[in-house]
Amino acid sequence: MTATDTMGWLAIAGLGPGDHRLVTPEVTAALAEATDVVGYIPYVARVAPRDGLTLHPSDNRVELDRARAALDMAAEGKRVVIVSSGDPGVFAMASAVFETLEGRTDWQALDIRVLPGITAMLAAAAAAGAPLGHDFCCINLSDNLKPWEVIETRLRHAAKADLAMAFYNPRSASRPEGFVRTLDVLRQECGPDRLITFARAVSTADQHVLTVTLGEAAPEMADMRTVVIVGNAATRRVGRWVYSPRRAG
Amino acid sequence: MTATDTMGWLAIAGLGPGDHRLVTPEVTAALAEATDVVGYIPYVARVAPRDGLTLHPSDNRVELDRARAALDMAAEGKRVVIVSSGDPGVFAMASAVFETLEGRTDWQALDIRVLPGITAMLAAAAAAGAPLGHDFCCINLSDNLKPWEVIETRLRHAAKADLAMAFYNPRSASRPEGFVRTLDVLRQECGPDRLITFARAVSTADQHVLTVTLGEAAPEMADMRTVVIVGNAATRRVGRWVYSPRRAG
Repeated sequence: MTATDTMGWLAIAGLGPGDHRLVTPEVTAALAEATDVVGYIPYVARVAPRDGLTLHPSDNRVELDRARAALDMAAEGKRVVIVSSGDPGVFAMASAVFETLEGRTDWQALDIRVLPGITAMLAAAAAAGAPLGHDFCCINLSDNLKPWEVIETRLRHAAKADLAMAFYNPRSASRPEGFVRTLDVLRQECGPDRLITFARAVSTADQHVLTVTLGEAAPEMADMRTVVIVGNAATRRVGRWVYSPRRAG
Repeated sequence: MTATDTMGWLAIAGLGPGDHRLVTPEVTAALAEATDVVGYIPYVARVAPRDGLTLHPSDNRVELDRARAALDMAAEGKRVVIVSSGDPGVFAMASAVFETLEGRTDWQALDIRVLPGITAMLAAAAAAGAPLGHDFCCINLSDNLKPWEVIETRLRHAAKADLAMAFYNPRSASRPEGFVRTLDVLRQECGPDRLITFARAVSTADQHVLTVTLGEAAPEMADMRTVVIVGNAATRRVGRWVYSPRRAG
C-alpha cells in the first residue's frame, strides 16, 4: 500500500437530472475510484453497485448528518463521493458540506472537490427550447429553509427586473398553498399572457413539458419533480418551442 | 442508403467550460454521428477532426448567419451540431437558432434538439465552493445586446432581493467602463464587505479563482474569460472556500 492509497478524499458530485448520458465523465471517474457513496436514497440508487464500493443511502432532510458522516470517512482515508441530483452547488449537498466544515480545521485540510453537474433548469430549458437565453434567476420555492415573505420579495424584484425565472421545488404535497401564492404574485406582476413552462422529470422516461400562459396556469401542473420556468416579457413561442430572445425586451 | 440516412437533424450542443471531462456523453455521441459541426472558431477547435466530418468555424457575432447555415444543412439531410461553450441555452447559440426559425415553418419541421452542457457559472461555483447554494441570478454584463440602464436596474433589484449573482462577459477590452459601473452599483447596494469571486478560465489549465470583498475588488480582476460571482448577504468563507448557506440570510 502506497501513501496515495491511504489518502482519503471527498467529492461532492452532481449526477445530472436523470439520464445517464448527462452524467459527466468527471463524475463517472470519481465514482469508479470511490470506496463509499453517500446520498439521498433515490440518488444513491442511480449508482451501480460493485465490489469494493459501499453505498450509504440516507433519508431526505438529514443533509448535515450525511455531510458529517462523509467527512468522517474521508478523514479515515476513504474515497467518498456524496451524490446529488443535478448540480451539487444548486440547492443540493455542497452548501451543507461547507456548513459542516465551520470550526473543523481538521476537516478543512481534507482533499475536497465539487464536481459540477447538469442542473435541472438547464435540462428543462433545453427540452422546452431556450427560455433561459437571456438574464434569469433561480429560486427555490420550498419554504423549509426560508419564510414566504422572502420568496415573495424575490419574486416581485425578479419580475420588476424582467428576469426569466426558474423555480425548484415548486410544490410540496404537504404545503401546496405556496405555489398558489406564487402564481398569484406572478399574475399581478407579469400579467396573464406571460409564458410559463412546467417541465416534469426532465431527461427521464416520464418527461413531460407543458408551456401555457400565466392565465392558463394551474397549481396542479407542478409537483416536486417539476422545474417551472417563467419567461421574461419578450419570451415567445416559435413552432413547438419557447425561447427568450438574446436582446432585452 | 436508407430513409434514416437521408434524414437530417440539428443538435445545439454545449461543450461545457473547457475540460473534456465535463462534456456530457450525450454531446459526445451527437458529435460522433455528425456530418457537420458549426460554431465560433475556438469552440469548433475543441472538436477532433475525423473522416466524414466537416468543420465550419466562424467568427464571433455572426450568430444568426451561423444558425441559418446550420438549418440549411440539416434541411439538406445533414447531421449538424452547433457547438457552444458551456450550455447552449445560457447566453449562447440556442436562442439565435430559435430566432432564426421565426416565419420558417419548413425549418420548424426539422428534428432539432438542444443538448445541455455545464455552463460556466456552475464550474466557477464548484471551483470556489458553493456560492450559488441559495437563490441567485445570472446576468450577461455585455452591453452589445442591451443598454446599460437595463443592466443597472437588474443589478439593483437583484441586490434588494438578496440574490447571489453570476455575471457572464463582465468586461470587454473595448468597453471596460461597464464593469467599473457594475462594481460601483454593487458597492452602493451591498456594501464593501460583500464577497465577490473572480473565476477565470474555469476547468482549464489557466484556471484562476480569487475571492475578495467588494471593497477590495478591482475592475482588472475580470476579463472576458472570467465568470464573476457576487454572494448574498449571508455568503461566507470557510477554509479555502466560499459558500452561501442553505437558509435565507
